Amino acid sequence: MKKVLFATTALVATAGVAAADVTFGGYGRFGLYYQEDAANETTITSRFRLQIDATAESDAGVTFGARVRMQQDNDDPIDTGDVAADGFSPSGTFRGDRVSTGMNGVRFFARAGGLEVGVGNIFGALESMPGQYPIDLGLTGLGYEYTAYNFRGAAYDSDEGGSAGLGGVEVIYTYGDFTVHASFDKTDSVAGDGNLDGDRAAIYGAYAWNGWTFALGLQDSDVDTDTEVTASVSGDIGPANVTLAYADNGTDGDHWVLAGRFDVGASTNIEAYVADADYFDEESYGIDFNHSLGGGTSLRGGIVKYSSGTTAADLGVRFNF
Amino acid sequence: MKKVLFATTALVATAGVAAADVTFGGYGRFGLYYQEDAANETTITSRFRLQIDATAESDAGVTFGARVRMQQDNDDPIDTGDVAADGFSPSGTFRGDRVSTGMNGVRFFARAGGLEVGVGNIFGALESMPGQYPIDLGLTGLGYEYTAYNFRGAAYDSDEGGSAGLGGVEVIYTYGDFTVHASFDKTDSVAGDGNLDGDRAAIYGAYAWNGWTFALGLQDSDVDTDTEVTASVSGDIGPANVTLAYADNGTDGDHWVLAGRFDVGASTNIEAYVADADYFDEESYGIDFNHSLGGGTSLRGGIVKYSSGTTAADLGVRFNF
Amino acid sequence: MKKVLFATTALVATAGVAAADVTFGGYGRFGLYYQEDAANETTITSRFRLQIDATAESDAGVTFGARVRMQQDNDDPIDTGDVAADGFSPSGTFRGDRVSTGMNGVRFFARAGGLEVGVGNIFGALESMPGQYPIDLGLTGLGYEYTAYNFRGAAYDSDEGGSAGLGGVEVIYTYGDFTVHASFDKTDSVAGDGNLDGDRAAIYGAYAWNGWTFALGLQDSDVDTDTEVTASVSGDIGPANVTLAYADNGTDGDHWVLAGRFDVGASTNIEAYVADADYFDEESYGIDFNHSLGGGTSLRGGIVKYSSGTTAADLGVRFNF
Repeated sequence: MKKVLFATTALVATAGVAAADVTFGGYGRFGLYYQEDAANETTITSRFRLQIDATAESDAGVTFGARVRMQQDNDDPIDTGDVAADGFSPSGTFRGDRVSTGMNGVRFFARAGGLEVGVGNIFGALESMPGQYPIDLGLTGLGYEYTAYNFRGAAYDSDEGGSAGLGGVEVIYTYGDFTVHASFDKTDSVAGDGNLDGDRAAIYGAYAWNGWTFALGLQDSDVDTDTEVTASVSGDIGPANVTLAYADNGTDGDHWVLAGRFDVGASTNIEAYVADADYFDEESYGIDFNHSLGGGTSLRGGIVKYSSGTTAADLGVRFNF
Repeated sequence: MKKVLFATTALVATAGVAAADVTFGGYGRFGLYYQEDAANETTITSRFRLQIDATAESDAGVTFGARVRMQQDNDDPIDTGDVAADGFSPSGTFRGDRVSTGMNGVRFFARAGGLEVGVGNIFGALESMPGQYPIDLGLTGLGYEYTAYNFRGAAYDSDEGGSAGLGGVEVIYTYGDFTVHASFDKTDSVAGDGNLDGDRAAIYGAYAWNGWTFALGLQDSDVDTDTEVTASVSGDIGPANVTLAYADNGTDGDHWVLAGRFDVGASTNIEAYVADADYFDEESYGIDFNHSLGGGTSLRGGIVKYSSGTTAADLGVRFNF
Repeated sequence: MKKVLFATTALVATAGVAAADVTFGGYGRFGLYYQEDAANETTITSRFRLQIDATAESDAGVTFGARVRMQQDNDDPIDTGDVAADGFSPSGTFRGDRVSTGMNGVRFFARAGGLEVGVGNIFGALESMPGQYPIDLGLTGLGYEYTAYNFRGAAYDSDEGGSAGLGGVEVIYTYGDFTVHASFDKTDSVAGDGNLDGDRAAIYGAYAWNGWTFALGLQDSDVDTDTEVTASVSGDIGPANVTLAYADNGTDGDHWVLAGRFDVGASTNIEAYVADADYFDEESYGIDFNHSLGGGTSLRGGIVKYSSGTTAADLGVRFNF
């Protein structure tokens, strides 16, 4: 006999009532991924993500909780020996490191009012900063070269423990239109010596004003190529939501991103970006569409020219549950 | 505090209403397994299967979904080093490849009306064809020598990604009494060379007529011992449901199965089969009983003489949840 | 869309009604762990435990079920290569054997009236005996030197299959104030020879009388250092719940424990113990507090002097869901 979980949040306890709950959600997506000049240019791509959020609320209104993900991708043929040999994967392959695996690193938190403390597989300050994900291109993200800080800092990891398998600590505080988020973790700054000798501390502040969001992030890291400064501004210009983001990515230099989202009908939008960085071979740009099919399902596709000069595209369906 | 999932499907959204849901079901079974002349003839056998079905339905009535299993068996002492050494496993052992593992390969699908497209860890056309599983012998299946196509084609894998870890693509179409199912996947046809150089395409058609089901399956595979043709007919003769199945299993030759199920009381049935194949040492036959205890629980047991001449038996309890 | 599991048990089918259910519960905890003279004295400790209980009830009232845990700790820096090199783990590390792992060994059971039979990853008789866990010190348990039988017998394993990866069999019978629990499993008594040549059978009986509980456990094991006899008595003396426990741990000799729990206010209690054993360097003792924050959340902390002479302490939050 199957069990049905109610597709509603109306039953979540109201504020002030102590409650303990575990919720299951997530999404699936599948479709085609094309990459120019790959041994196999067109492959099937898919992801299944089950997210478990477990919480309990104290009498005083503090919510304690944990977030865990169980995820499986098959969008990386490189990880399967059989396929690597001839690069031939017409039907896509399940990543060897993800089939038959379980939970990712857990993020624990305590939250009350506008304050949240996180421990473990933390979100990371720069990763969470407004303007770093101005768009979500196509079905699969298509390289994320429109993320200015370029993952050069602590970040939540859906497959592993986050930040090289190590946990971190973070504090997030929201007061009205102002948000500040600070995170700290350790890094393996000298590759291969097995010593966690590096520190990494990051902070961002963001302010929402008249429909515009301004954000500034700073990071002090023992890794030379980690982001040092990043800033973004985003807001609506007519029918478009536009973001301009910049990052000083340490010894790798500057990274600029201009991205926008445009509604083209009641259930369709188009996203586009152009990005350049000192460590890019050439400019990176891309465009996509997202068409809602209703009920949490959507048709998505995009095309991108990576900074390497390679063209890639994807097309498929995503469903949230 | 425990969370209770409702044991009902009455709450699933009715047709036409967009919905997103994740359901948990599965079964557990445990009991004794006996195999003649094994180093340890009688062992404890058990399986726990948790099946996760996540779906979302578009406004137009297309259901997108994913199926995942998390399963653990302890019916194979060979996989545990400690036990293999002396073959002694009085209490059964948990399979090393299944303890502490997580999800199997995901099957994604899109379904509307009578049409379904599947991607990833596909069911497989021949595996799904009527008449291939005419019975389910005993507690554990007892060797499945009554499955004529003999797993010589793509098949859903509850532990791994299916079809050697690779995904496939399939289309299932049902129109009234007629069903057709086509699947395609890649095979590693030259063992050990690491190249997915083989193609495998299969299709079956089935027709239900006056209480009888006729099915014909065809497969074109680069694996010499894969099934080429298989056919089955099944229906009721008096109190018995009887199936006759045949498969031409490539260079391994013919495989014949005659199987039946007989109700012997309100809550008990008996199943039996006889099978022969060119690659059997001798005829294979077996008999079992299934006694419902109500509430999704049952007592099951069977005895079989494998084609190798070895006798095996099992007895235990299964509960669905 | 998230799914909400109801935080209530009121919906469990009443006795006599056949039902099949799967429930999800568990707890999370996180905080700080201090250990004197460790390479990194203060680390972050955390655990996430998701417990899955799947059951079905026959018409005759027999409940068949399975218990599975999915658990992740980050309290053991030794298991991560990177950290082992310099022992430096300021933010705690996720255990390599637990990140990306899934289910532990499954315990199957059949239960009717006061009788329960368990198979697989069994609880174990001595592990379940009253008085073996008189207290649960601090946030993390802090060494469990107050457990007299000292894990020298079969025990449920939240991470693995239990009892060296092998399953066992156990019978539990409760009749009024009397409980008896017998378990049997195999042991690898000669380390490294790969043979499961050892037997281990244990039994305890417990009797509740006038607010006091008396328990006696016996074990016959081929492992020399396994417990042979253990006994405990526990009950209330004024505002305190006090336990005295003893174990004859085979060739390792005697183990004595005196422990107590004292309520100090409506939502706070204090636990303390003193223990000594022939295999201790010196006496072991510790004290903790548990302060309920309501809604299944609590603040916990403790300090202990291990039998090795090392001092350790922890402090943090636990939330049940």
